[in-house]
Amino acid sequence: MLPQAAWRLDADPAIWPDEVLVAVERLNLDAASFRQLHEANGGSGSAIRTAVRQIVASRGKMQNPVTGSGGMLTGVVAEVGPDSPLGLSPGDRIATLVSLSLTPLVITDGLASWDGASEQVPCQGHAILFGRSIAAVLPDDLPVPLSLAVMDVCGAPALTHRVVADAASRLRRAPVVAILGAAGKSGSLSAAAARRAGAGRVIGVVPHEGEAAVLRAARSAGGGGLADAAVIADARDPIRVADVVGEAGGPADVTVVCVDVPGCEGGAILATAQGGTVIFFSMATSFTAAALGAEGVAADVTMLVGNGYTPGHAALALDLIRSEPGVRGIFDARIDEHATTAAEHAGSAGRRPDPVQARPGQG
Amino acid sequence: MLPQAAWRLDADPAIWPDEVLVAVERLNLDAASFRQLHEANGGSGSAIRTAVRQIVASRGKMQNPVTGSGGMLTGVVAEVGPDSPLGLSPGDRIATLVSLSLTPLVITDGLASWDGASEQVPCQGHAILFGRSIAAVLPDDLPVPLSLAVMDVCGAPALTHRVVADAASRLRRAPVVAILGAAGKSGSLSAAAARRAGAGRVIGVVPHEGEAAVLRAARSAGGGGLADAAVIADARDPIRVADVVGEAGGPADVTVVCVDVPGCEGGAILATAQGGTVIFFSMATSFTAAALGAEGVAADVTMLVGNGYTPGHAALALDLIRSEPGVRGIFDARIDEHATTAAEHAGSAGRRPDPVQARPGQG
Repeated sequence: MLPQAAWRLDADPAIWPDEVLVAVERLNLDAASFRQLHEANGGSGSAIRTAVRQIVASRGKMQNPVTGSGGMLTGVVAEVGPDSPLGLSPGDRIATLVSLSLTPLVITDGLASWDGASEQVPCQGHAILFGRSIAAVLPDDLPVPLSLAVMDVCGAPALTHRVVADAASRLRRAPVVAILGAAGKSGSLSAAAARRAGAGRVIGVVPHEGEAAVLRAARSAGGGGLADAAVIADARDPIRVADVVGEAGGPADVTVVCVDVPGCEGGAILATAQGGTVIFFSMATSFTAAALGAEGVAADVTMLVGNGYTPGHAALALDLIRSEPGVRGIFDARIDEHATTAAEHAGSAGRRPDPVQARPGQG
Repeated sequence: MLPQAAWRLDADPAIWPDEVLVAVERLNLDAASFRQLHEANGGSGSAIRTAVRQIVASRGKMQNPVTGSGGMLTGVVAEVGPDSPLGLSPGDRIATLVSLSLTPLVITDGLASWDGASEQVPCQGHAILFGRSIAAVLPDDLPVPLSLAVMDVCGAPALTHRVVADAASRLRRAPVVAILGAAGKSGSLSAAAARRAGAGRVIGVVPHEGEAAVLRAARSAGGGGLADAAVIADARDPIRVADVVGEAGGPADVTVVCVDVPGCEGGAILATAQGGTVIFFSMATSFTAAALGAEGVAADVTMLVGNGYTPGHAALALDLIRSEPGVRGIFDARIDEHATTAAEHAGSAGRRPDPVQARPGQG
């Protein structure tokens, strides 16, 4: 079977000719996985750390057994097999753009430098990249935690760009785009990508006034707002989502779901015009809820499984983070917030994980 | 929340002005749900019957709590609210084309006429159709069990037709189409729909020689085979699926998954050309396995959640069953097989459910 579907991977550091060995520096758990670990362990950092250690020890990879999802990692290339097609060299500092759920991994430091309070996990160990894999050399002009956070969600803006551009071409007008979770990382990048692809109106749906204020404050490179409207709804309330999107200029020709909680399928479907498209990026999406939900309300909508890979996805996302001040601000605030939260919740070691500016040598 | 996501529905027979009350005659459980019930109850017909009764009594709808899926029903329209947009009249014999998972339902006969051995369930009771719903009047020229079986899967050929036609237009050539589970009901209809939409080559993937023989024997309306190739692979074995599709003329521009078992995502992705499309119709599809699986092998494929609703879906599927002898043969054999299997496994009552020809008055 393929590595993602396997329960356990062989993480032996002896590589095959088309593989690459990476000395791991940091894991970046995906949001759905970290949320599940946080809730299942009552928010206890040490319990979360133990859980991650046990998962990797038993599975040979960091794949959350409940969510099925993983995340990504950064590290330094240690060895490159002679037949590797990835174009990497020993010493390159890279990020993997395939999921941790299919990346062989061994942890050697017991995660001693991680307090379990944020999804960014300082880690020593090794990982293997297969021949048919994706990795990107980290850019010199951006802090590592920022590049990591951007690359982790770079599939979303890339696919959003493609779908919105297709819709503009098909409809022969600038499409209306709704983004559920527009003040988050994948959501803000997707909003910027939608605008660049020709969206006529970008409607950001957020859960509360705090995020609405963040979104309203976010400026686009063009000088306007990142979103044309910031509307408040619980994404799990389909009637409410459809209503607020409708009032803000909807229904949407393209709806993008970037909210990592279960139960957002119905609202996304109802907020979308007949003949429109919904892109589900949340790993909390239920296949049956989407399929039966659309059928159940006679919705002729195209529903896409958000593929994390579109050619050029990392380059597009990094370009957006460089050129879009509103998106950059949202990322910087979220990364700072993690750092602060982690410091507040630190255990006896009082460890504060690297904030954005702490490792300029890697930036 | 929307009815599909609700745990329990209100199945009170007093209808709202835009609703329709239906006197139920038969439930048709979806394949994934019946398989789960069959396995969870060790194949015991009486235990399966009890389980279905309990689900409907506790939830007010027939939604399998494990698979999340339902099925459909037939019955006679009893009452039509003055504001119903469905165009139905009292006395019409209809099939619902929305899932049972969101249809309020009350069973009044304890399923006494069902032996639990097949997914076609004779049933007395009532159901409610909402305003935004889909129902089709059963055609006079086809047996009821056949129409039911066709309408139950009619979303698959309709969406396949649309996607293959789009691919032909985009690629400016006749696309290669692979159908996983091509000798089944949704698979054979999808194969016929793909051909009608302009497929250049239809590759049917089946699990064993018995189904390969069925598929090879199935003729298309054009006089050739329903599929151009019938190849054998376990759909859960990604490498094998990719190999056999490749050898038969692949990779596919469009791959259609009609196999109702978990774990078919990887094979479908690997069998599909870069830039191609996978349509997942199986309710056993895992959203995360699809999303992470494609990313994990750097597959630039568009992945669609198989929406059960496309405008005109019932009419297209009924037209295919009338005009395509190979598809009709596969349906007739499967319906007969259920009848035979049910008779063989009948309990003390020795009840034999209605075979295709048993209720000509409804045909």
